[in-house]
Amino acid sequence: MSGALDFTHDPAATSWVTSAQAQGCDFTQQNLPHGVFSRGAEAARGGVAIGDQVLDLAQVASLGLLAGLAQQACEAAAQGTLNAYMGMGQPAWRALRQGLFGLLSSSATEATRAALTPCLFPQSQVQMRLPVQVHNYTDFYTSLHHANNVGRVIRPDDPLTPNFKWLPIAYHGRASSVVTSGTAFHRPWGQAMAPGATAPVFGPCHRLDFELEMGFFVGPGNALGQPLPLAQARDQVFGMCLLNDWSARDHQFWEMAPLGPFLGKNFCTSISPWVVTMEALAPYRLPFERPAIDPQPLAYLDDAGDRAQGSLDIELEVVLQSRLHRERQLPGDRISATNFRHQYWTIGQMLAQHTVGGCNLQSGDLLGTGTISGPTAGEAGAIVELSQGGTRDVPLPTSGELRRFLEDGDRVILRGWCAKPGSARIGFGQCSGEVLPALPNLAS
Amino acid sequence: MSGALDFTHDPAATSWVTSAQAQGCDFTQQNLPHGVFSRGAEAARGGVAIGDQVLDLAQVASLGLLAGLAQQACEAAAQGTLNAYMGMGQPAWRALRQGLFGLLSSSATEATRAALTPCLFPQSQVQMRLPVQVHNYTDFYTSLHHANNVGRVIRPDDPLTPNFKWLPIAYHGRASSVVTSGTAFHRPWGQAMAPGATAPVFGPCHRLDFELEMGFFVGPGNALGQPLPLAQARDQVFGMCLLNDWSARDHQFWEMAPLGPFLGKNFCTSISPWVVTMEALAPYRLPFERPAIDPQPLAYLDDAGDRAQGSLDIELEVVLQSRLHRERQLPGDRISATNFRHQYWTIGQMLAQHTVGGCNLQSGDLLGTGTISGPTAGEAGAIVELSQGGTRDVPLPTSGELRRFLEDGDRVILRGWCAKPGSARIGFGQCSGEVLPALPNLAS
Repeated sequence: MSGALDFTHDPAATSWVTSAQAQGCDFTQQNLPHGVFSRGAEAARGGVAIGDQVLDLAQVASLGLLAGLAQQACEAAAQGTLNAYMGMGQPAWRALRQGLFGLLSSSATEATRAALTPCLFPQSQVQMRLPVQVHNYTDFYTSLHHANNVGRVIRPDDPLTPNFKWLPIAYHGRASSVVTSGTAFHRPWGQAMAPGATAPVFGPCHRLDFELEMGFFVGPGNALGQPLPLAQARDQVFGMCLLNDWSARDHQFWEMAPLGPFLGKNFCTSISPWVVTMEALAPYRLPFERPAIDPQPLAYLDDAGDRAQGSLDIELEVVLQSRLHRERQLPGDRISATNFRHQYWTIGQMLAQHTVGGCNLQSGDLLGTGTISGPTAGEAGAIVELSQGGTRDVPLPTSGELRRFLEDGDRVILRGWCAKPGSARIGFGQCSGEVLPALPNLAS
Repeated sequence: MSGALDFTHDPAATSWVTSAQAQGCDFTQQNLPHGVFSRGAEAARGGVAIGDQVLDLAQVASLGLLAGLAQQACEAAAQGTLNAYMGMGQPAWRALRQGLFGLLSSSATEATRAALTPCLFPQSQVQMRLPVQVHNYTDFYTSLHHANNVGRVIRPDDPLTPNFKWLPIAYHGRASSVVTSGTAFHRPWGQAMAPGATAPVFGPCHRLDFELEMGFFVGPGNALGQPLPLAQARDQVFGMCLLNDWSARDHQFWEMAPLGPFLGKNFCTSISPWVVTMEALAPYRLPFERPAIDPQPLAYLDDAGDRAQGSLDIELEVVLQSRLHRERQLPGDRISATNFRHQYWTIGQMLAQHTVGGCNLQSGDLLGTGTISGPTAGEAGAIVELSQGGTRDVPLPTSGELRRFLEDGDRVILRGWCAKPGSARIGFGQCSGEVLPALPNLAS
């Protein structure tokens, strides 16, 4: 990726869809995130968020307002999943972005506005779907602070495994149970071994947690046996979303030796429906520096372009909204806030590592960053960290409640956005999910 | 599953496809395994193996020789993947089996034989494909002997993790890199940490291994949040194949703390192309008994039907054929032989565990048993066990070579079959794969 900004990043640009200029709007003219939506019984199709509206790309594709590669890209992005569009690669993504930017710009002609107005639907009146068919889901473990925080719970004497600073650790997640924001799930059953007990107990999870993560989506991908070098890996990423890797800590900690998490993680993974493109995020790239005292990356994980632009300045927050909050019509309490820039490995390094042994990535594959925790206690991305392994109360000031783990009826809402002077704000919207009570009687 | 045998299990039954009666034939009249094949540039389609032939189900479906559910099932099983057919469930599977058994039986009419003869192609002249689109791949760890053998290599003082006898351990594998038998792969690059070293080295794998496993395929599956009770879980399995979970042990052992295997396992997983149905395997069911001294399964993993019929009597062997073997036109040396009956957990228990927290299984999902090692040294299902962590030579008597791990040019061939007095032999064919040299210059 060149890293060069173009007219689509002009912070002064505005849209004739006036809600895109509302204070705090995530879906500004400079953002143009992709998603898949449906209306009633109509077929799912691709759209782009602008202000509080969604632009129906299936209708746009039929209008003849775009041409060449932008038109081809629009047709692909109008499908019921974005896998094929993601597989088209950067030139197509950029052509469509530039084309849609022009169509939605305040400088668009009256005729363009008149043609596009019937293609806009209020976001409040559509149903968002998963943006891709998730063929493969991988979850990384790239926050040093998270690894230290959780490591202290499991292995107090030796929180950080010796490999952490040498490679971006990852495991394969469950693709089938990835759901879109707004999906509720039942508290899972499973086995847990209490400290000092001699036999595990089967029952509903007692240590239910969220994980604040970001997901990213693979573009064209690579053939089996053909690694992606780091210098090329960054260009393989289409865009990013918010991701909540719900976790049953009691089940996870009992089952995970020696092969890693399984039931503790595979009952539900929530993602936000709008995919913010790497192109939209370009103004928020940051240099990435490894502390000099740490081992420096091996050559295949080191690249000048990645050092110069490998990090991202993305603000993140976690809101917990309990049943009591909702009864009192309160929005919930913010229990954590941090920034993506604290991650120890870059997205490029994650892709290079994933493929270096020959593993093939497919278009639309979902990769998670792992829990994102910042350097201070209030920046932890999981409640097991905020409550120090369930030993301290996490206060919910506006409802007056306390939490050590999640309770039935709790809704967790992740938000993310980029904002700085001289650049337009762009945001991710939200990723929410609600804990339903456990199913009855599985033990009988 | 009722467990009742029907006329399709009659050991005296024969086929008019006479090669099905050849000595040692895997694909007998009682077997009828499903697969997907193609011929030249023609579209992939479903077939059934009989003797040394494959019966083209797309042609069979067009003949009108089947009716009702059997015809519908034949149309589904004729598609380019078996996912939809697997999703139809037991009544459809049984209807098609009974229908095809009749058509292929020695008692079929001359007219039937004449109609079907053009639907038969020699297996040697078709290209086998993956039988399903692998949406999700899970690998279990259910051999006590394997867990003890490998555990001794990694954790000599404490080989078996405390959870092993309480639940069938599993992890999510990589779906994209599952390939069909006959696919060669490059020796993978990755990081390894030598004993006593202070920094890892990046290079081609030095401890390349195979894993003798069996795979099984999910039928209709379950909805997210709706566990499959053990008593129903068995009926969810369509059939089984041979599976080789190639492993880069040096990379795996360095990367796997704390989240499990990743690059060490995701560069290639090979499966045999023919799926032997659970219905065909019915005569080879065995009672499953847990040693009285061991913890007995928790209620959700315990069921009378599973105890009565949960195990299977399947003979397995591993042949290593080196480049030198091939130069001398030798078939290779058998380096291991064991039986599936030694597994510590049943297939039903694996499905019940997988879904008990609410994880959804999809039609055609692939589940591996984990490495199958029997109780004695010669029954180990991985070379890291046979060579005791690379400390002892494994002899290849006919070529005069020795192995501690796999070398370039080595081909590993897994075979499996069922045979006992009073029942017809049925077999799995073979699952083979070859190690190509590592790609050059990834370190530069």
